[in-house]
Amino acid sequence: MGRCVVIGAGELDQKFLQDFSWREQDFIICADGGFSHARQAGIRPDLLIGDQDSYSEGFPQGIPALTCRPEKDDSDMMLAVKEGLARGYRDFVLLGATGGRFDHTLANLQTIAYGLAHGAFVLIADRDNMITMLQNDTVVLPRINGYYLSVFSYTEVCDGVSLEGVKYPLQQARLTNWFPLGLSNEILAESARVTVQEGILVIVVSKDRRR
Amino acid sequence: MGRCVVIGAGELDQKFLQDFSWREQDFIICADGGFSHARQAGIRPDLLIGDQDSYSEGFPQGIPALTCRPEKDDSDMMLAVKEGLARGYRDFVLLGATGGRFDHTLANLQTIAYGLAHGAFVLIADRDNMITMLQNDTVVLPRINGYYLSVFSYTEVCDGVSLEGVKYPLQQARLTNWFPLGLSNEILAESARVTVQEGILVIVVSKDRRR
Repeated sequence: MGRCVVIGAGELDQKFLQDFSWREQDFIICADGGFSHARQAGIRPDLLIGDQDSYSEGFPQGIPALTCRPEKDDSDMMLAVKEGLARGYRDFVLLGATGGRFDHTLANLQTIAYGLAHGAFVLIADRDNMITMLQNDTVVLPRINGYYLSVFSYTEVCDGVSLEGVKYPLQQARLTNWFPLGLSNEILAESARVTVQEGILVIVVSKDRRR
Repeated sequence: MGRCVVIGAGELDQKFLQDFSWREQDFIICADGGFSHARQAGIRPDLLIGDQDSYSEGFPQGIPALTCRPEKDDSDMMLAVKEGLARGYRDFVLLGATGGRFDHTLANLQTIAYGLAHGAFVLIADRDNMITMLQNDTVVLPRINGYYLSVFSYTEVCDGVSLEGVKYPLQQARLTNWFPLGLSNEILAESARVTVQEGILVIVVSKDRRR
């Protein structure tokens, strides 16, 4: 099963979108105004999700669309993830999921947790950041020059947090979501190893644009 | 006791900073590169916090400075909040606390929770958003045209969540941090009433810039 890539209506740098490491097997969903980003980049989605008001020029010919009432419990991004899960996808990338609207950014962060609860890996990626969550697991992250690695507790507490191959290592540490101890670490080795045993850990890789 | 306003090094719209509703009694702290924003806006802080590397032109004459080693557990924003708490402030506004670096934005969100745990009200404000947290309390928010109101569970669960005076009311509802049910509500009455009984609720007021 390939990836499900959802393009949302948040801010989305065109160069980032075009340079994104697209794969042949990607199933591309445009959520709401995400279609504007896709169209501008010459990307043809496999599915459109959103209410018809979002598509001022009508639905593009030949692309399946799932329409919904504007008054609903699910954001369009959440609907897209639910649709991807229903189709069997367990590997998601959410683009256009961040930007000036913090309400949407936070909703999309929570959507990563939703995916995790349903056995899926969900990554939010934008021009400057990659954001995901880890639960009862270990992940290996390659060093990318100019990027910082941060870990945060998403749940009130995370236990058994270990970071190896970094400037400020952690061994079986406890993190809480009221003290961002894990901010701005640096990967020194070829790769870093991140482990969490209890709780959900947010992993953020952010670019230092000043360099 | 007045407010403690911290100006951080994130993105900060100059017009927003100058138009900000400053009060005579505000105690202004610049955290790290936040001083660049302040200087550009003609704002003189009461205190500078950060390592000396941040101030390429040296510390401005006459402004007290707390310097620290770059290798530390606290972010400069956290140090500023801790300093404000130590001086007795319980009402904080964090500016320059959001922007393209999601790691810093999330750390600053967690700093709101830190303040709350220490009996303080902390608001993050930028050009498009106001963000705070509520715990075992009720708050009344005035309607501002063109802004959406969202509520999210910060803890795994929030119980006894009630929203009144809004398009999609809630009564004694449960929210979780893996499903952003409370996204994008609208205040219909003169003001909305937000209550949470168990857990910590994030409140986000965001501007719809498309209008």
